[in-house]
Amino acid sequence: MAEKKIEERLRKQLDFILEIDKEKNIFRQTHLSGHGRNENDAEHAWHMAIMAYLLREYANETVDIARVMLMCLIHDIVEIEAGDTYAYDTENLKTQKAREEAAKEKIYSLLPEDQKQELTALFDEFEDNQTAEAKFAHAMDNLQPLLLNDSNDGGDWRAHQVTAEQVYGRQRKTRQGSEVLFDVTDGIIKKHIKKGNLKESDKTRR
Amino acid sequence: MAEKKIEERLRKQLDFILEIDKEKNIFRQTHLSGHGRNENDAEHAWHMAIMAYLLREYANETVDIARVMLMCLIHDIVEIEAGDTYAYDTENLKTQKAREEAAKEKIYSLLPEDQKQELTALFDEFEDNQTAEAKFAHAMDNLQPLLLNDSNDGGDWRAHQVTAEQVYGRQRKTRQGSEVLFDVTDGIIKKHIKKGNLKESDKTRR
Repeated sequence: MAEKKIEERLRKQLDFILEIDKEKNIFRQTHLSGHGRNENDAEHAWHMAIMAYLLREYANETVDIARVMLMCLIHDIVEIEAGDTYAYDTENLKTQKAREEAAKEKIYSLLPEDQKQELTALFDEFEDNQTAEAKFAHAMDNLQPLLLNDSNDGGDWRAHQVTAEQVYGRQRKTRQGSEVLFDVTDGIIKKHIKKGNLKESDKTRR
Repeated sequence: MAEKKIEERLRKQLDFILEIDKEKNIFRQTHLSGHGRNENDAEHAWHMAIMAYLLREYANETVDIARVMLMCLIHDIVEIEAGDTYAYDTENLKTQKAREEAAKEKIYSLLPEDQKQELTALFDEFEDNQTAEAKFAHAMDNLQPLLLNDSNDGGDWRAHQVTAEQVYGRQRKTRQGSEVLFDVTDGIIKKHIKKGNLKESDKTRR
């Protein structure tokens, strides 16, 4: 009853698959709906991929939805090594790119060469944010935590004293992916300014 | 600065998107690698969808991979209402189908009618397990927890005193989706029988 030898290619694929399990331990600043615990990267990616499929009709340009979904699913894998960088953490944002580049090389090298090339190219495409798919994936990346935060009465913004200016800064990318979904975003931001969960600009509290 | 009215169709899509956030609170019997905490359904689905993409070359039949991935992502949404049923829990397995049918109607009715029809059809296709896509998605549904459990030295099987017979019973579906991945499964099961983490059959402990 000797154990069958697994081909090297498949062994590498399985090693990568086991490695990315760690993404479930990378926690974000966003909290789950119902004032739940912090969300992790794997949950965020799962949510984004389904959102992308359901909301694809609102993309500014026609998108290859399978490509968008895969992009959503893998876009945070580098954070297993590089950690999560909060969208409004100016200090860590400075080093984010370098940390993520090193992480990318390390993690994707577990895969067979062709799949390493394919997935790093897809990650780079997401980061470069030039294609219709990357822009729509970014819209999901922004809209997903916004919807959760909205459902929790803006608690994440209040906790970090985020300003409307900062949120609009980030949400510019949503507009590039979907004008319709940016309208939703805009409505949510305005509601939370009115409620006092978001200050209009940094100046007002300096 | 009046809030813009969101179209009814989009409102329904956003309501569904917020509702499925609850899948992150449905915990499974499987533990994360590194002897971690219990895994939840959203993490499991995320992992399965990436696995499906990376391992698609091993599917017995050519599959529409986008369809498989979407099937993986949504296959457990009904558990928000119906709860998770452990693969070796004979009592709850008897009522699983009825509980999940009721849940399906309730949850997917949040969506616009066309998307409700589309996603419930995809869920039914997964459950019926007749198409190439459904069979490959089931192979992922079985292989994913097996890999985690293997990495944790079979702890989940030991905790529930699962027998090799039971595991083989469930893993029959893996073979229908992928002979190659069933070989991997078979090797893992045999290893854990040898290690004493799985008893060969129920008879040996009765």
